[in-house]
Amino acid sequence: MRCTKWSIKVTSLNLEVVRALAREGIPSVGMSPFSCGWSTCERNLASADVSMVANAIESGFVPVLHGDAVFDGSQDCTILSGDVIIRHLAAQLKPEFVVFLTDVLGVYDRPPTEPNAVLLREIAVHEDGSWSVVKPTLQNINKQVEITVAAHDTTGGMMTKISEAAMIAKLGINVYIVKAATNHSSRALSGELKGDVPEDWLGTVIRFLR
Amino acid sequence: MRCTKWSIKVTSLNLEVVRALAREGIPSVGMSPFSCGWSTCERNLASADVSMVANAIESGFVPVLHGDAVFDGSQDCTILSGDVIIRHLAAQLKPEFVVFLTDVLGVYDRPPTEPNAVLLREIAVHEDGSWSVVKPTLQNINKQVEITVAAHDTTGGMMTKISEAAMIAKLGINVYIVKAATNHSSRALSGELKGDVPEDWLGTVIRFLR
Repeated sequence: MRCTKWSIKVTSLNLEVVRALAREGIPSVGMSPFSCGWSTCERNLASADVSMVANAIESGFVPVLHGDAVFDGSQDCTILSGDVIIRHLAAQLKPEFVVFLTDVLGVYDRPPTEPNAVLLREIAVHEDGSWSVVKPTLQNINKQVEITVAAHDTTGGMMTKISEAAMIAKLGINVYIVKAATNHSSRALSGELKGDVPEDWLGTVIRFLR
Repeated sequence: MRCTKWSIKVTSLNLEVVRALAREGIPSVGMSPFSCGWSTCERNLASADVSMVANAIESGFVPVLHGDAVFDGSQDCTILSGDVIIRHLAAQLKPEFVVFLTDVLGVYDRPPTEPNAVLLREIAVHEDGSWSVVKPTLQNINKQVEITVAAHDTTGGMMTKISEAAMIAKLGINVYIVKAATNHSSRALSGELKGDVPEDWLGTVIRFLR
């Protein structure tokens, strides 16, 4: 029943997003990873066919997926996070860039509610998968970057987001983490930030440093 | 956009059914045929993988599917009716019996709102796919059976229901068409009607006559 309750919640939210997009004239279509046959084995993605997502895009639809309750190899039910889903979609579909929308400007060096929290504007991902802050330069910020898990995020929080984003960036796909419903998010979504990120753009870009 | 609007409607309805089942303690899970990768070609079912439905049942869930907007071979969008879906599921998953819930007692010889409408209690399907009324015997009823298409049913109405039900019956699987939320539907759903249908049961059974 835990699975059913979770599934009802994410389906309701998905439906609201599809509805909102439709109201704006965007032909979107809700797709649950569970229904698409996605499954995990020991909590790692085991089977994840992206053909339905690709079909929807080719036919001019905007597919709307969500973190979902899926079957695990053990026949139990696991939560597959939206961050893992977008990483898999990025690897398979090779988009030009990926945007993560959130409720704060981007990634901070410590909880953004703390008075001296500094927005990390650019994070570089290295060949070995490690990552470091490029902008602002480390002299200017507190050396100890604390990344906290937001209490309201059931599927991993900021740490998962950054590590999944780093894996996307390693594919050569820039990831922008930005506050939803702002001028900054519109600019990221419109593809305006392809080259160097302008000084007046507030958000975090995560990119691969070759 | 027509596709998106239809999809929002059926998804909302599906969610309400899943919610109602969950409230009764039944671990159900919504599955859209579209998300499952079902598609048509020239309006006939082309690809329809039932493995996700079978998985859900094996794991103890009650899958809730619905008539859906799916891709047609031509890359347009077609409406795939719930009656076609249940016929395909029956052929693949071989259930003991199938129950169609409706808002009248069963199938009538003419529109059930007309004063002399007679409930057809048993319909036999023959080897060649044709069907005839077994009970009540034809002497007692108006010979001309008028089957009308209900105006509120967007995906085919009674005629499609009977012909899809006849195809299920031809597989040796009895189909019960019965009024939802009645003692008659509970009896049908509980599997009580496996043998001969008792006189006090009101509904229509469609079965294969070898």
